[in-house]
Amino acid sequence: MPMAIETIEKLIDTAGFSIISSIDGDGFPNTKAMLPPRKRDGIVSFYFTTNTSSMRVSQYRENKNACIYFVDRRFFRGVMFVGSMEVVEDECTKQLIWNEGDETYYPLGVNDPDYCVLRFTATKYREYQNFKSITRSVVA
Amino acid sequence: MPMAIETIEKLIDTAGFSIISSIDGDGFPNTKAMLPPRKRDGIVSFYFTTNTSSMRVSQYRENKNACIYFVDRRFFRGVMFVGSMEVVEDECTKQLIWNEGDETYYPLGVNDPDYCVLRFTATKYREYQNFKSITRSVVA
Repeated sequence: MPMAIETIEKLIDTAGFSIISSIDGDGFPNTKAMLPPRKRDGIVSFYFTTNTSSMRVSQYRENKNACIYFVDRRFFRGVMFVGSMEVVEDECTKQLIWNEGDETYYPLGVNDPDYCVLRFTATKYREYQNFKSITRSVVA
Repeated sequence: MPMAIETIEKLIDTAGFSIISSIDGDGFPNTKAMLPPRKRDGIVSFYFTTNTSSMRVSQYRENKNACIYFVDRRFFRGVMFVGSMEVVEDECTKQLIWNEGDETYYPLGVNDPDYCVLRFTATKYREYQNFKSITRSVVA
């Protein structure tokens, strides 16, 4: 039985970390763990913070194709979203997900040149549970 | 300071699961969690079992470019290996990683047409810890 949207949202919000993937300059997938999204709009848009100078940012500037994945180890299930990742540079969006305490990492505040927002927009997702999987569209 | 090889091997062996990524027919990275590797040779070759009929297998038949990732949530560190994934069909390799009890999933045994081995060969790896990362070559 497909997971309910509420179940998927709970999985995302309790996973504790995000797995994000990009494609490198040689055409290989590259994957890493990141902190959970700072903000999300349903299961369509996800906002992350990272360093402007990071390898991931330079890869997404070259190729927006991306996926993000959340895993629930307890029930051995997961959900993968496929879509595009934008490097967001407008101050409004950067302000939107700025948290108190971020000065520790970005001393210059929202305008710190190394403070960067990644916005992922999903087009479809694939859910995995009980060693089965199913792909579904994201309706924005 | 870069992680010692022994530290990386321990991270792999205690992660409890593997994150594997492929590239789909539209050029998007696809990521999922899988069981830990059944066998590995140092940090060069990793063997996984999966279903021949799985989406991942059909993607790797089209495009071998792959990465695998292991995460240690406790210390917020991880290691990504980039390389190629082969769908292995020779009986010798399939026998090599067959475990007692696999009949539960593959009733026809090693020759069950849905029993499949994926062999990943790493060319380089990238380690992540303390919000820093470094890329290194794998010497086979």
